[in-house]
Amino acid sequence: MKEEIIYHIDQDTLELKNPVMIVGLPGVGHVGKMAADHMVEALGAKKIVDVYSEHFPPQVMVKEDSTVELVGNRLYLAETDKADLLILAGDSQSTDPAGHYKLCEIYLNFASQFKVNRIFTLGGYPTGVMSDENYVIGAANNINMIEELKEKGIQFNPSEPPGGIVGASGLILSFAKLKNIDAACLMGTTTGYIADPKSSKALLGKLCGILDIEVNMDALNEKIKDMDQIVEKIKDSVTGGELDEYYEHTPASDEDLIYFG
Amino acid sequence: MKEEIIYHIDQDTLELKNPVMIVGLPGVGHVGKMAADHMVEALGAKKIVDVYSEHFPPQVMVKEDSTVELVGNRLYLAETDKADLLILAGDSQSTDPAGHYKLCEIYLNFASQFKVNRIFTLGGYPTGVMSDENYVIGAANNINMIEELKEKGIQFNPSEPPGGIVGASGLILSFAKLKNIDAACLMGTTTGYIADPKSSKALLGKLCGILDIEVNMDALNEKIKDMDQIVEKIKDSVTGGELDEYYEHTPASDEDLIYFG
Amino acid sequence: MKEEIIYHIDQDTLELKNPVMIVGLPGVGHVGKMAADHMVEALGAKKIVDVYSEHFPPQVMVKEDSTVELVGNRLYLAETDKADLLILAGDSQSTDPAGHYKLCEIYLNFASQFKVNRIFTLGGYPTGVMSDENYVIGAANNINMIEELKEKGIQFNPSEPPGGIVGASGLILSFAKLKNIDAACLMGTTTGYIADPKSSKALLGKLCGILDIEVNMDALNEKIKDMDQIVEKIKDSVTGGELDEYYEHTPASDEDLIYFG
Amino acid sequence: MKEEIIYHIDQDTLELKNPVMIVGLPGVGHVGKMAADHMVEALGAKKIVDVYSEHFPPQVMVKEDSTVELVGNRLYLAETDKADLLILAGDSQSTDPAGHYKLCEIYLNFASQFKVNRIFTLGGYPTGVMSDENYVIGAANNINMIEELKEKGIQFNPSEPPGGIVGASGLILSFAKLKNIDAACLMGTTTGYIADPKSSKALLGKLCGILDIEVNMDALNEKIKDMDQIVEKIKDSVTGGELDEYYEHTPASDEDLIYFG
Repeated sequence: MKEEIIYHIDQDTLELKNPVMIVGLPGVGHVGKMAADHMVEALGAKKIVDVYSEHFPPQVMVKEDSTVELVGNRLYLAETDKADLLILAGDSQSTDPAGHYKLCEIYLNFASQFKVNRIFTLGGYPTGVMSDENYVIGAANNINMIEELKEKGIQFNPSEPPGGIVGASGLILSFAKLKNIDAACLMGTTTGYIADPKSSKALLGKLCGILDIEVNMDALNEKIKDMDQIVEKIKDSVTGGELDEYYEHTPASDEDLIYFG
Repeated sequence: MKEEIIYHIDQDTLELKNPVMIVGLPGVGHVGKMAADHMVEALGAKKIVDVYSEHFPPQVMVKEDSTVELVGNRLYLAETDKADLLILAGDSQSTDPAGHYKLCEIYLNFASQFKVNRIFTLGGYPTGVMSDENYVIGAANNINMIEELKEKGIQFNPSEPPGGIVGASGLILSFAKLKNIDAACLMGTTTGYIADPKSSKALLGKLCGILDIEVNMDALNEKIKDMDQIVEKIKDSVTGGELDEYYEHTPASDEDLIYFG
Repeated sequence: MKEEIIYHIDQDTLELKNPVMIVGLPGVGHVGKMAADHMVEALGAKKIVDVYSEHFPPQVMVKEDSTVELVGNRLYLAETDKADLLILAGDSQSTDPAGHYKLCEIYLNFASQFKVNRIFTLGGYPTGVMSDENYVIGAANNINMIEELKEKGIQFNPSEPPGGIVGASGLILSFAKLKNIDAACLMGTTTGYIADPKSSKALLGKLCGILDIEVNMDALNEKIKDMDQIVEKIKDSVTGGELDEYYEHTPASDEDLIYFG
Repeated sequence: MKEEIIYHIDQDTLELKNPVMIVGLPGVGHVGKMAADHMVEALGAKKIVDVYSEHFPPQVMVKEDSTVELVGNRLYLAETDKADLLILAGDSQSTDPAGHYKLCEIYLNFASQFKVNRIFTLGGYPTGVMSDENYVIGAANNINMIEELKEKGIQFNPSEPPGGIVGASGLILSFAKLKNIDAACLMGTTTGYIADPKSSKALLGKLCGILDIEVNMDALNEKIKDMDQIVEKIKDSVTGGELDEYYEHTPASDEDLIYFG
């Protein structure tokens, strides 16, 4: 097995209306992953493709019912009034540099196959400081797109992020350009030290504005409340004992709620 | 050499009775490895296949007679009243992520080739604490199997282990599902800091119950006694000098008796 | 995608006059990279080839206008009175050992294809100490070339650098020998702790002497002034706070001005 | 380039008398490498094959005359009264596990091609303690060979080394067995912290006894004298300043004389 791609739909007859691809994979603060996972839930998206690869960690996840699922990424389809959304979400990015290149080619093949008009990759932008405000920083493969996104409240700063964009969120922009697909990366500002559902919500808010759709935020608000309590506890605690306590009493399905990079 | 598979039987004519595959490779606390190695010894299993691979460490082991043996895994056959057991045991897992995928495909090919009915992968479950009780935690690729194993005393907790199952013990479950073979991973609880024959014995006890077979535990009881003495010495010692002494006076064939991960 | 090579010229009809290849990729003190980048700017070189590879980091750089560019290396052509210079410059070297071998074969294919007479690879030579003088140390694939370069002020010391030359700057010399192309590596002495435009200028000065060309040094002098101020600040500062301040207020396009290896 | 093998002899017509292969590559204490390098010098062996590979570090070495040489291994031929010795010596072992497997296949192909009768791989055995006595520990791919070598003063201890033999010295034994070539690994005891010419000499002494040949030890005795002085200085020094001094004043061609693993 190098890569295994399993379709759960009849890919030849699937016709999409104004298809837009959204990519939210694990990364800084899990900002992009939590945004994409939330969209899948809130919009009742259905899984249409499974992607497995030897470039992912050699690992299975255990589900609530104790059955296992091979680590992989998944393409979901959510139909909205304005656009059919192809949401790429999942467990992992490549474990090695070359794998990123191979996997992003696969993701772009989906974009071609389903005649995607534009792609938004979602990520986090680490600032290193706690802040009450969340901005969304952008970069794109196309200067016209930048003008449009500025009007929707996305910030574009010269040569920012200074270190570039690492992983699928970045590569997809350049690979999309080779296929003449407009693509932008939207990055929610976050501390970089902790999973940040607040940043995911701010990011998702802007994305909804761009796509002119609405997404119920209830589940994400719950996560934010949980996270606020944790951060309070951390602030109160010098030893970090409460953090351990949190870990022990939190259901494992929230295992990506907190992490330290 | 990429992978080298050497059969020591006539694979075309071998007919097995209710073949069950047991996988016990190196991992957390060497719990699975010691259980499988013990079964091979106690049941007088004969080696039927050698597996070598460039994904294993580039290394030979030195045997008691000073001859060498290339690092690899081995498939053994033990015939019991209830079932013919194919026991996969050995020296190593893959040194890189992609190698895990390749090797597990090879292991599943054995399962197909020998028409295996079910697979049990054996491993350790690190708790981080010393405990006098050993539980066996399970996960499976099939919800029906879980119900059956619960009745045999295997514990199934929602989404546990939270980080999933890494390596062959996990991948084999998902790969088996693609071939419609029922498979479960059985994990003995252990500290995670030290090789744990007591956990192996508890694990093996449950497995014998599931398979309805008996395995003489004498050699494993010996290892437990040795280990208890070491742990006592460690507790008595601040400098750890006695541990070094142990290392020097213990025959190397026990080299996997103690390890620090 | 393994490697992607995109020509921006008609490679079959391009005829060059006394073609010389200059290679300045990221490395010790970014001495070679800054020298090559400066030549491209100061000589108004035009990009003729893009090289992308899965051996580069999976990353895009963000440009001043917020559009992205896939990490890669680029071949530029600068026409001077004495020679047509093919300047290889870019963002990265291979992330893994085997990739260095593959990429250097590609670079040597350019040398063959464009009938290059000689190659100069540019790098830094870490001394570990601050010094007001910058020397240029050389090594070559050909004893005659050494004699000639000594006359131009390049120092050749027996078996120096003692650890050899790592990466493209070194491999290219040996690969060139297989194609009977004379090649030398020129290394500017530098502390090894910080990007060093002063060393780049000294190196470039010697190279201009060898090639008998002139290159305007203004932009490099600016970088040196900036760097001198930073070093002063570092000397004044115990906590390093000013260095952080510098990072925050320096435009990101200068992101390779300072780095710590 | 994956692997590049360059013959400097007419391999088809070369006829060898009782060909024995000696392998001494970099490793613990550089014991094996220094022994093989010394044999090449002292016996006036001529280079017959160059081996380059993308599995070696991407690096060139700089020679005394400032010309460069691609990192690689080399096969030398030394003709003695009793046997023609094929000595494999060089700069490096593989940088990755799979490369060890590939390179050892190449080395064994030489053994087949030149109809080698037996192979001796040379290495160091780290004891962690300074000692005035040097033993030579052995392991072999063949029980008969062990008996013979015991008579020549090689020590064979059960399952020693406990962690097995890593790299070419070990793999070659197992690979040789597949080709029915007798092979043994001879390991000189050494601290493991420093390059150890004294251990190399002891090892070489035993090898000469086995092969019934004589090798002039003058150059190795020089190295031992140098090393003794260094060790004295280290003992005298708390700060280690003298060690730095040694580094600065020692010609780079001795760069493998001291190293810290």
